[in-house]
Amino acid sequence: MSNTQLLPLLEPADQAVEPCCPPLTERPFTAEEAETAARMFKALGDPVRLRLFSAVASHEGGEACVCDISDVGVSQPTVSHHLKKLKEAGLLTSERRGTWVYYRVEPSVLASMGKLLSIAPA
Amino acid sequence: MSNTQLLPLLEPADQAVEPCCPPLTERPFTAEEAETAARMFKALGDPVRLRLFSAVASHEGGEACVCDISDVGVSQPTVSHHLKKLKEAGLLTSERRGTWVYYRVEPSVLASMGKLLSIAPA
Repeated sequence: MSNTQLLPLLEPADQAVEPCCPPLTERPFTAEEAETAARMFKALGDPVRLRLFSAVASHEGGEACVCDISDVGVSQPTVSHHLKKLKEAGLLTSERRGTWVYYRVEPSVLASMGKLLSIAPA
Repeated sequence: MSNTQLLPLLEPADQAVEPCCPPLTERPFTAEEAETAARMFKALGDPVRLRLFSAVASHEGGEACVCDISDVGVSQPTVSHHLKKLKEAGLLTSERRGTWVYYRVEPSVLASMGKLLSIAPA
């Protein structure tokens, strides 16, 4: 009992996004599954949004605020607009700290999209 | 020497699509990488197109023609239009056989998109 350790929960069940869909190669998607998955793909279907997403995803500590992103060649309001869109699509989560809103990639969403694109077992 | 076997090449080098980009979490994408990757995500960012893609991807033998797809709730010309868009985005390849054009998922593209969404090693 003395060496019992509490491990940090990296992905508490109540925060994890439920996987929407089976691999694309497994069976034809239903209309509902296609709606959900297309929303995520569409959010990443814009070059500026994709650059911002990868800027946040690869930033130190896995999070970034608008103040950290300056080299994408669009104005700060445009950056904010796109980050909001990515949040609405469920790809980013956000938290306000003082003046700035910090964005973070939702790892379970990445995993869920990766699963969609995996080859279904034969 | 007597038990040497020739294994089939599942993905010959000359057919494989070159992976466009590192994982989204590895480093910020360049403008060029974002253009290439966004094109693929955008093609899957429409619910009808996504259903058609999964219908082709999950069809027997990994290929399908318009004649095999009837239950997505859109007309045959619309099906053809979307399949063409998916082909233009590099997600499907096609081959005409007699009256019909058969579409097939490009596995190296799926693998490349899956890699984009994988978590970069720390």
